[in-house]
Amino acid sequence: MNINYNKLSKCVKGTSVPKPLSGTLSGHAAGEPFDKHVYNEIKKQLPKNTFRQYEYLNDLFNKNPTIIGFEARQALFNSPTVLFLLSRGKNATDKWSIENPFEEKQNDTADILVVKNEFYEIIDIKTRNISKSSQPPNIISAFKLAQVCAKMLDNKEFNTFTINYFEIDWQLVKEKLVCNDTHFACLFKAQPNNLYINWAAAMQIQFHVQDLDQTFKGTLEHWAKIYLKHFVTQAKKRADDMITKFVKPFEKYIK
Amino acid sequence: MNINYNKLSKCVKGTSVPKPLSGTLSGHAAGEPFDKHVYNEIKKQLPKNTFRQYEYLNDLFNKNPTIIGFEARQALFNSPTVLFLLSRGKNATDKWSIENPFEEKQNDTADILVVKNEFYEIIDIKTRNISKSSQPPNIISAFKLAQVCAKMLDNKEFNTFTINYFEIDWQLVKEKLVCNDTHFACLFKAQPNNLYINWAAAMQIQFHVQDLDQTFKGTLEHWAKIYLKHFVTQAKKRADDMITKFVKPFEKYIK
Repeated sequence: MNINYNKLSKCVKGTSVPKPLSGTLSGHAAGEPFDKHVYNEIKKQLPKNTFRQYEYLNDLFNKNPTIIGFEARQALFNSPTVLFLLSRGKNATDKWSIENPFEEKQNDTADILVVKNEFYEIIDIKTRNISKSSQPPNIISAFKLAQVCAKMLDNKEFNTFTINYFEIDWQLVKEKLVCNDTHFACLFKAQPNNLYINWAAAMQIQFHVQDLDQTFKGTLEHWAKIYLKHFVTQAKKRADDMITKFVKPFEKYIK
Repeated sequence: MNINYNKLSKCVKGTSVPKPLSGTLSGHAAGEPFDKHVYNEIKKQLPKNTFRQYEYLNDLFNKNPTIIGFEARQALFNSPTVLFLLSRGKNATDKWSIENPFEEKQNDTADILVVKNEFYEIIDIKTRNISKSSQPPNIISAFKLAQVCAKMLDNKEFNTFTINYFEIDWQLVKEKLVCNDTHFACLFKAQPNNLYINWAAAMQIQFHVQDLDQTFKGTLEHWAKIYLKHFVTQAKKRADDMITKFVKPFEKYIK
């Protein structure tokens, strides 16, 4: 990891952003202005290495103006796993040009990307209104993570990237959102077996960063294998649960 | 049906609402101001019969001040199916009082409710930015609709309610959203077999109101049975698809 999260935490705690003019304070969107704040602080630590995901892609393609088309541009990534996590679709990549760069996309994997010495640190910012109890937020698609693990194992790629989460706890104080605590967690230090998959909510893994255990001591290879076993077990269970919940109770009406 | 949708359409076409100050124009939320507009027009047609869902519940409980507690308040509905569609949970209903009425809830079934002669007309407003091609919106949970159909059949209740959709097509013209077309469809006039269930998106049925066929000529009882058969078939298919997509490809990594 290249970011100093202790330092980041000190810079962010106690700061505030204006209350959004419209929308409710219940959604995750309310804390979004903090995201910019965190980006600026990380950029202070690593000015040449800090990007938005779309910025990084624009930068990469800009530096290689003679590389054109989807497959050639895909080859600019030296890591198949990072390629899978960060690249855009074929159509969008084919159409990319200096005059027609990528823009921010809501379901991009990374809020912030720090790239240094061929190592990709993916950071996802989660903001949380601590005045209300709330459902754990969507973290990443459990299926996407399974595909990532399979790619890591296929390519024996265990030292090229990591996925980190940074939670900002805020409260409304006199028309301002004030950050009164932050939490950091690395996905690959959590016990993969404990990750909760919400199948009904687009198969999203959900947790509050604050509550994520950080007790896994094994290698990333080991993590990927345990996660895949967990994912497959949970997928089988969900398939069984669907029959119990959505088929059995209604069979008597359709004979 | 008590609402005159042709008249409603004439009142709404060509009208405009101010562009929202913040947020993007891509989400379904952008057209929300039109919802108020439609509500006001329906209220003009049926001033004593038009409600927001929470208004109706507040009104019902206000008129029966001596009826207290969840079960007694549930009994105020003369239709078990409508009760299931419109009522709030046990805890919220227990806590209800004149001083602590219900407020609007994002996942309420009805945007607008017209109640006349013991018949409930549920109206859901869908707004659509026609400058962009967009995914069909979430209509209703396929599981919730299956439960509704089961209740209808259990209680032989086929004349107490309907569910209608009203689509407002708008375009941004000089900082205003202008409605240039509207579409109306009744859920129970669509072929139940054709309803698309997006299992990954919280099991939501999805369609553009404009594209919904209105060719079903049978009874509501028949509709309910065909829908339940469709739902069960699709649930079984989804359970099978989950094994194919989420279990099989990953088995080689976990032996």
